Amino acid sequence: MNRSDREAAKRRAGESAAATVADGARVGLGSGSTAAHAVRALGREVEAGLDVLGVPTSFQAREVAVEAGVELTTLDETDGRLDVAIDGADQFAGPHLVKGGGGAHAREKLVDTAADRLVVVVDPTKEADVLDRPVPVEVLPDARAPVAAAVRELDGQPELRRAEAKSGPLVTDNGNLVLDCDFGAMPDPGGLARDLAALPGVVEHGLFVDAADAVHLGTETDVSVFEP
Amino acid sequence: MNRSDREAAKRRAGESAAATVADGARVGLGSGSTAAHAVRALGREVEAGLDVLGVPTSFQAREVAVEAGVELTTLDETDGRLDVAIDGADQFAGPHLVKGGGGAHAREKLVDTAADRLVVVVDPTKEADVLDRPVPVEVLPDARAPVAAAVRELDGQPELRRAEAKSGPLVTDNGNLVLDCDFGAMPDPGGLARDLAALPGVVEHGLFVDAADAVHLGTETDVSVFEP
Repeated sequence: MNRSDREAAKRRAGESAAATVADGARVGLGSGSTAAHAVRALGREVEAGLDVLGVPTSFQAREVAVEAGVELTTLDETDGRLDVAIDGADQFAGPHLVKGGGGAHAREKLVDTAADRLVVVVDPTKEADVLDRPVPVEVLPDARAPVAAAVRELDGQPELRRAEAKSGPLVTDNGNLVLDCDFGAMPDPGGLARDLAALPGVVEHGLFVDAADAVHLGTETDVSVFEP
Repeated sequence: MNRSDREAAKRRAGESAAATVADGARVGLGSGSTAAHAVRALGREVEAGLDVLGVPTSFQAREVAVEAGVELTTLDETDGRLDVAIDGADQFAGPHLVKGGGGAHAREKLVDTAADRLVVVVDPTKEADVLDRPVPVEVLPDARAPVAAAVRELDGQPELRRAEAKSGPLVTDNGNLVLDCDFGAMPDPGGLARDLAALPGVVEHGLFVDAADAVHLGTETDVSVFEP
């Protein structure tokens, strides 16, 4: 799949998901390039009269939403509940996701989980039978060494994510660090998710277990929609 | 137990725990008034020739350690491992603890868990058959409403901790908020700990399950030491 075919597939996925949003919905707005297509499509529907309130999953999602003209609110205002969220994934296998390539997975998981329904938008490069992407793990700055040691005991290879636009480590929107943890194939993401969540110093990990209620998979020519 | 008896009990517990620290040890330095007695006692032993390196569990612990003359290091320098930690508790039942009254439980759990051995220092007012103190839950600032909703579903009563020296909420050393969550009696702290750790937006909760390797319980006249 070449670059422009892939871009078209992402756009189809995003637009297809945006079209499912009901009038009056409170919508979690995902991060990443595919979710951004959904937010822009939602903006066009708002212009045409759709009434929605969005809650962004990241600084980046907020910027896209503001530009697209989607009115924003907060989880505090909605009592921590949303009707639907539309978000991308770095990889998906059935309803399970790996997220966090953009470093926003803590807030993404918060918003996506607050939604009654999570609609995942992806292109075919994200599909897998079994998850095997490195899992981004956001850690408190002082927790780098103990969490790295614990990840090794879980048979993972942790690597501190480096920033590219400054020297030293990548710092998240929450002021924390990210360890990208390679566990190879993960046939039991639920068990690993529990182990990672229990580690002291882990703010959030990028395994989203049983998370997707629907997947909109854009292809070169079409969109495949299914409930995994 | 009157105030001065209680203060004496705390001091006895702290001094008793400090006396168990071996030469050359890397020591986690707990927060709170009882742990501060241990750190000060450790400082006196350092003055007498003991060679230790301390890792503080909080801003407050760091201040006490500096004043006491205990040389400090970081978990980065020790590869995430420590020999022993001495820390207080808001309540203990056997090896299980509730911590976080001081809002430092995220770093306390990180440091205490990094230690091969956790020595808990307490006075008799902290003892319980079954834990029943409200559990401090540190949450990302945006996670207040969804975590509060989830805690209610776990049959807990969440209350946002208010600051006393500023208007509005208490903000932790990590820049987050604290929900004090009252679950009543907690006969299965392990199960509740897993549930709380899995909630998106929870940075750390104050249940320390199977954490204490030894308890030094100061009394009006003595110290009772046991391995729960």
